[in-house]
Amino acid sequence: MTDARQAALDYHAKPIPGKLSVELTKPTATARDLSLAYSPGVAEPVREIARDPENAYRYTGKGNLVAVISDGTAILGLGNLGPLASKPVMEGKGVLFKRFAGINSVDVEVNAESPQAFIDTVARIADTWGGINLEDIKAPECFEIEQTLIEQCSIPVFHDDQHGTAIVTTAGMLNALAIAGKSVEEARFVCMGAGSAAIACMKLLVSCGARAENIYMLDRKGVIHSGREDLNQYKAMFATETDKRTLGDAIDGADVFLGLSGPNLLSPEQLKKMAPNPVVFACSNPDPEIHPADAFAARDDVIMATGRSDYPNQVNNVLCFPFIFRGALDVRATRINEEMKVAAVHALKDLAREPVPEEVLVAYEKESMSFGRDYIIPTPVDVRLLERVSSAVAQAAVDSGVARKPYPAHYPLKTVDDVYGG
Amino acid sequence: MTDARQAALDYHAKPIPGKLSVELTKPTATARDLSLAYSPGVAEPVREIARDPENAYRYTGKGNLVAVISDGTAILGLGNLGPLASKPVMEGKGVLFKRFAGINSVDVEVNAESPQAFIDTVARIADTWGGINLEDIKAPECFEIEQTLIEQCSIPVFHDDQHGTAIVTTAGMLNALAIAGKSVEEARFVCMGAGSAAIACMKLLVSCGARAENIYMLDRKGVIHSGREDLNQYKAMFATETDKRTLGDAIDGADVFLGLSGPNLLSPEQLKKMAPNPVVFACSNPDPEIHPADAFAARDDVIMATGRSDYPNQVNNVLCFPFIFRGALDVRATRINEEMKVAAVHALKDLAREPVPEEVLVAYEKESMSFGRDYIIPTPVDVRLLERVSSAVAQAAVDSGVARKPYPAHYPLKTVDDVYGG
Repeated sequence: MTDARQAALDYHAKPIPGKLSVELTKPTATARDLSLAYSPGVAEPVREIARDPENAYRYTGKGNLVAVISDGTAILGLGNLGPLASKPVMEGKGVLFKRFAGINSVDVEVNAESPQAFIDTVARIADTWGGINLEDIKAPECFEIEQTLIEQCSIPVFHDDQHGTAIVTTAGMLNALAIAGKSVEEARFVCMGAGSAAIACMKLLVSCGARAENIYMLDRKGVIHSGREDLNQYKAMFATETDKRTLGDAIDGADVFLGLSGPNLLSPEQLKKMAPNPVVFACSNPDPEIHPADAFAARDDVIMATGRSDYPNQVNNVLCFPFIFRGALDVRATRINEEMKVAAVHALKDLAREPVPEEVLVAYEKESMSFGRDYIIPTPVDVRLLERVSSAVAQAAVDSGVARKPYPAHYPLKTVDDVYGG
Repeated sequence: MTDARQAALDYHAKPIPGKLSVELTKPTATARDLSLAYSPGVAEPVREIARDPENAYRYTGKGNLVAVISDGTAILGLGNLGPLASKPVMEGKGVLFKRFAGINSVDVEVNAESPQAFIDTVARIADTWGGINLEDIKAPECFEIEQTLIEQCSIPVFHDDQHGTAIVTTAGMLNALAIAGKSVEEARFVCMGAGSAAIACMKLLVSCGARAENIYMLDRKGVIHSGREDLNQYKAMFATETDKRTLGDAIDGADVFLGLSGPNLLSPEQLKKMAPNPVVFACSNPDPEIHPADAFAARDDVIMATGRSDYPNQVNNVLCFPFIFRGALDVRATRINEEMKVAAVHALKDLAREPVPEEVLVAYEKESMSFGRDYIIPTPVDVRLLERVSSAVAQAAVDSGVARKPYPAHYPLKTVDDVYGG
């Protein structure tokens, strides 16, 4: 076993298994404390919630509690390994929720025989939490599952593999296009991959100005075009009338390549056929569609992002999901709608254009970083993310009418500790 | 609003809502830490669990994690107030799991249209945890729900309202009978109430030596006898061939009155008709079937327990459920069987017969306490409970063949911190 693999296993196993614990937030030392925490005192909040369900937010942890729920059918890049095997990922998501946004999170692994069984199960238990983060559910089932749960639940339901990826990708993409001197409305896109993340990315890019007729999406069989009869309804949204059939056909003169597919699928020769200042997001992880070294060897005007932390411009979902939930919870949003997603895109996009704080420079061991080809997306260590993204999302929720609480008086949040100040 | 009610609400609401938080147990300060906690490091434990599901106990929190699950159909003494209103109770149970046995706990409130829907929902998500504590589910549905889930799940499923109550009651009852100089085999029982707790108590007493033909159980319609045609299968187990019809008939010469019913249902006159040294467990809470003051005014030879903390001999489930789960988790038991319940009974019974430690005297502001009429059950502040009950339960699991791990080398557990030592 390699050192890196052993380190990962040790991290999870020692000194106690797992990464999270449940801790007490109120005193429990005396018999009186326990009579308040449990019987007989606990009858009072029970009665108050029975009287008005909103009181659950006042007297229980519901309002700062997100469930991370998976069926394990599409775990990371590893595929369908079943619900139990997904547990370390779901607990890891909980680590990130707490670490970046002060949100308590529990994982639920669902062993469901069908998408409908998954939906029924989650719908019946959804009131337990303030929000639900769906994770690692395969396409196309994930679309129906998410859409149905959004309709059936009164709390936000958000499939991060779709929308978290889309938000961070779109924010970086808008900045990359600006640096390339191109408008999103005119840009020609090639999207390699037609899974849940790819479809969500292209939908959100369209919400942010991209034109559907400027997009070629490719699945394993090639370009998704209007002559194909093997398309599910989600891929069909991106079918274009074209005689292009292969990546080689589609890439010619394209402004943007977005890869959410597999390793080494974009060749240096294909990259050379793109328009000047091409934007290449090669997000297959850990092995991108084209390695940055190969890309820059082919041409030096490329603006590049990957899913990797060891290269500039990492497209990392942690830039979004803790903060979009923080904003949604803080105004008690009933859902995470398109307006909130677009607000998160612009908050991330704008933050990258501001001067970089000292702690980011320290973390990356750099003397300077500034908006440009090597810095188009904020970094996960940027503490301003909590303030900027959460407050933008909360404002959008209020403005679009899905908030059940006003914009918080204690905003902007600067640190995780501020979360507890309200 | 009274001061006590306001104090209970304030406890739950301030300074942050609820009683529990989720915290990180591993370092997350650096980018390397996060690469171990989440991508890419998390792929390693995922693969290991896909290879062998038992590895979930090694690399995730599953092995020290219990779900407290309710449908809110029988919340405390308050009745069917729905799943959401039960949340403060379920979170309170989580407080007790952590406080007394170091067990992490999450609550799940299930909004199910039928017992089968409840069963299906819980069965699909059960692998998430190391054990399931069912709570506040009304009878008779609770019997079918628990039994079916025990059969369908590979982890312990335990309805505390039944078995926790039964274990603590039986432990106290065996001691009370010993003090009264009576044998459990010969004693004549009257059980007022025929709900889930009453039926579980009488079943466990039978497991511990009581004879079914010596038991009169009463529901709202009076004595449960073989001539009644309105009995569900659970009550029918205790139908006796008798011409007794009322409590007044049944109580005459009885050795034991166990009340799990409602306030003031046993009159002083009825108490006077019981045998010498009568054992009276008046567990209706907060108002017992007969108030201790009224009982002792009627006769001075009564041996009495209640559900209240302000009188001696409190029958309190917290004496059992944290420790029975601790023992079950520590040997990775597949279920909590009758042998483990009986082991818990005897551990509790025996502990009450030992000298009382200093900290218990301090907590109760007494100069001395010793086994006798006013001390037949251990107190919740007794730190020996963790060691004694958990180790007895673990040993019984090993001996009865339901343990998947050997008896822990780090036993006996003396403090909650020891839990983390293995």
